[in-house]
Amino acid sequence: MRVAVMTAPGEVDVQDYAEPTILKPTDAVIRLSATCICGSDLWPYRGIEPLDGPRPMGHEYCGIVEEIGSEVTSVKPGQFVVGSFFASDNTCEICRSGYQPSCPHKEAFGPSGAAQAERMRVPLADGTLVATPEVPDDDLVPHFLATSDVLGTGWFGAVAAEAGPGKTVVVVGDGAVGLLGVLAARELGSERIIAMSRHEPRQQLALEFGATDIVTERGKEGVAAIKDLTNGLGADSVIEAVGTQESMMQAIHSTRAGGHVGYVGVTHEVALPGMELFFTHVHLHGGPAPVRRFLPDLMDRVRNRQIQPGKVFDSELPLDEAAEGYRAMDTRQSIKVLLRP
Amino acid sequence: MRVAVMTAPGEVDVQDYAEPTILKPTDAVIRLSATCICGSDLWPYRGIEPLDGPRPMGHEYCGIVEEIGSEVTSVKPGQFVVGSFFASDNTCEICRSGYQPSCPHKEAFGPSGAAQAERMRVPLADGTLVATPEVPDDDLVPHFLATSDVLGTGWFGAVAAEAGPGKTVVVVGDGAVGLLGVLAARELGSERIIAMSRHEPRQQLALEFGATDIVTERGKEGVAAIKDLTNGLGADSVIEAVGTQESMMQAIHSTRAGGHVGYVGVTHEVALPGMELFFTHVHLHGGPAPVRRFLPDLMDRVRNRQIQPGKVFDSELPLDEAAEGYRAMDTRQSIKVLLRP
Repeated sequence: MRVAVMTAPGEVDVQDYAEPTILKPTDAVIRLSATCICGSDLWPYRGIEPLDGPRPMGHEYCGIVEEIGSEVTSVKPGQFVVGSFFASDNTCEICRSGYQPSCPHKEAFGPSGAAQAERMRVPLADGTLVATPEVPDDDLVPHFLATSDVLGTGWFGAVAAEAGPGKTVVVVGDGAVGLLGVLAARELGSERIIAMSRHEPRQQLALEFGATDIVTERGKEGVAAIKDLTNGLGADSVIEAVGTQESMMQAIHSTRAGGHVGYVGVTHEVALPGMELFFTHVHLHGGPAPVRRFLPDLMDRVRNRQIQPGKVFDSELPLDEAAEGYRAMDTRQSIKVLLRP
Repeated sequence: MRVAVMTAPGEVDVQDYAEPTILKPTDAVIRLSATCICGSDLWPYRGIEPLDGPRPMGHEYCGIVEEIGSEVTSVKPGQFVVGSFFASDNTCEICRSGYQPSCPHKEAFGPSGAAQAERMRVPLADGTLVATPEVPDDDLVPHFLATSDVLGTGWFGAVAAEAGPGKTVVVVGDGAVGLLGVLAARELGSERIIAMSRHEPRQQLALEFGATDIVTERGKEGVAAIKDLTNGLGADSVIEAVGTQESMMQAIHSTRAGGHVGYVGVTHEVALPGMELFFTHVHLHGGPAPVRRFLPDLMDRVRNRQIQPGKVFDSELPLDEAAEGYRAMDTRQSIKVLLRP
């Protein structure tokens, strides 16, 4: 079968790999209906994260179950499923508290679990996958795909930032995660949602997803603009969806004393200065999104056509043209690229 | 009147100063019943924090109101009062949300507001001071004094760490704040309270305040010991009451995924590594304690003889011997020194 493999920074090649098989009785094998490229796939692409040899890519997925291990009970062949990008048992104390990516029994997907492929192996299928009651209409597939990571991550940012009724929410970052943070903040009932974006097409999508205000400044000017909009105090809730030192400090300083920062941008090369943090009085929470916590709810919202998170896919390519998809996202020509195996 | 003045690092001198007077209609002047030396007073003493000239010292206080400005309505001469170490209006949006040290209208105490003195000026008296229904018995004075900062700070650490029923709480730091963090965790109904301390007299006080376990290791060994006691997962709630890089990381790594770190040790020279924080999944909250939020409740608990936070004062000196008190705390000979003006 065909798999997108990163062979070197800036080099993605679609190659023939062995078909995935059941390795453990808790595994499932699924045939991908759709997959996509994640902002985090660009780190090794850009050489920021080291590659130790050719890497089969992808961790966002939905598809049809083809085979299950002997211990799998919650999904069966023929069902349409979405899964989270961490494989967790979903029964231990940490999973039950909603932090599945920190599950002490979590398993790596491994090369046969790469999602930018025709098929993939999913470990701990009972804890990781969620099935729909029926195979959905084709037009819903991109929206289901989005729940696997990018929506789940934006949603966690909004939950960690305690977005909700009466709250003013700021979203730092206009990538797909930030844009879906806007959607999440709206779904959670937030009163005012300020998207920080300098890019017209992304501003439009932010407005469509529920943003009430757009701020184009960034850094200190961005913080000043947020203060101007919030009676000088800062926002109740700030979603950080970038992960740089500048964006993190922009998020922290845009938050009012006692407010909440939800950070989901992976914090590469960030160091938070203690004294500055101390005197801001903010709450800080984030990390890898526990998508599995939110998946049943998010999939219901998609199934009921209440939300259309798949609108972040502004480009669609056959899997064989994955390299072009990486190029388009690297140059910010595309917000997010969907791949059809 | 007599005031303890830090004239240089390591040098404290009790000098004659002008009597404080009402400078603004919102001020009060109080006569100190007792005051004390704070761990944070040791920073300039040790040369860690620069001194720009002689500094009248002290910010923990309780006493009798002697004079009030024309706009003060909530306290009157003759009343016994305790106040917080930030002067805030306690009516604005930030104060009402419980973050008085971030009050946009907060006022500096200034030299005539130094508490290691016979008398002091308290700005924004209505927002800052809380009076008792009657002048308390002498034996309660040290306990009331403790509510002004050291108990309020430990209490905020416990609240920020979300200590409470069913929770396992770890306290990093066996100074007076950490010890009162133990007391706060107990008062808030925590199930298990693990004090990290290597000093026998401090361990004894921790046990007296409600600690259920003592861990003597620190750093990585300390984290391993906490994991051993918590099924390998870490504690639900960790109070950080030191403020160094090592203690902060010890607190973060002692917390389970999804758990809460409440940090109240002033984070001098701390830089939190983004990637490490990201993958811990902890909640982080802290900063200067909003003592005023807790003061009415804490003063009631003292008045009802429910808590004895003044037990952290293991030494008492006349104000004129303040220099000896600083020396005793600097050498860790005393946990905390009470001064009698």
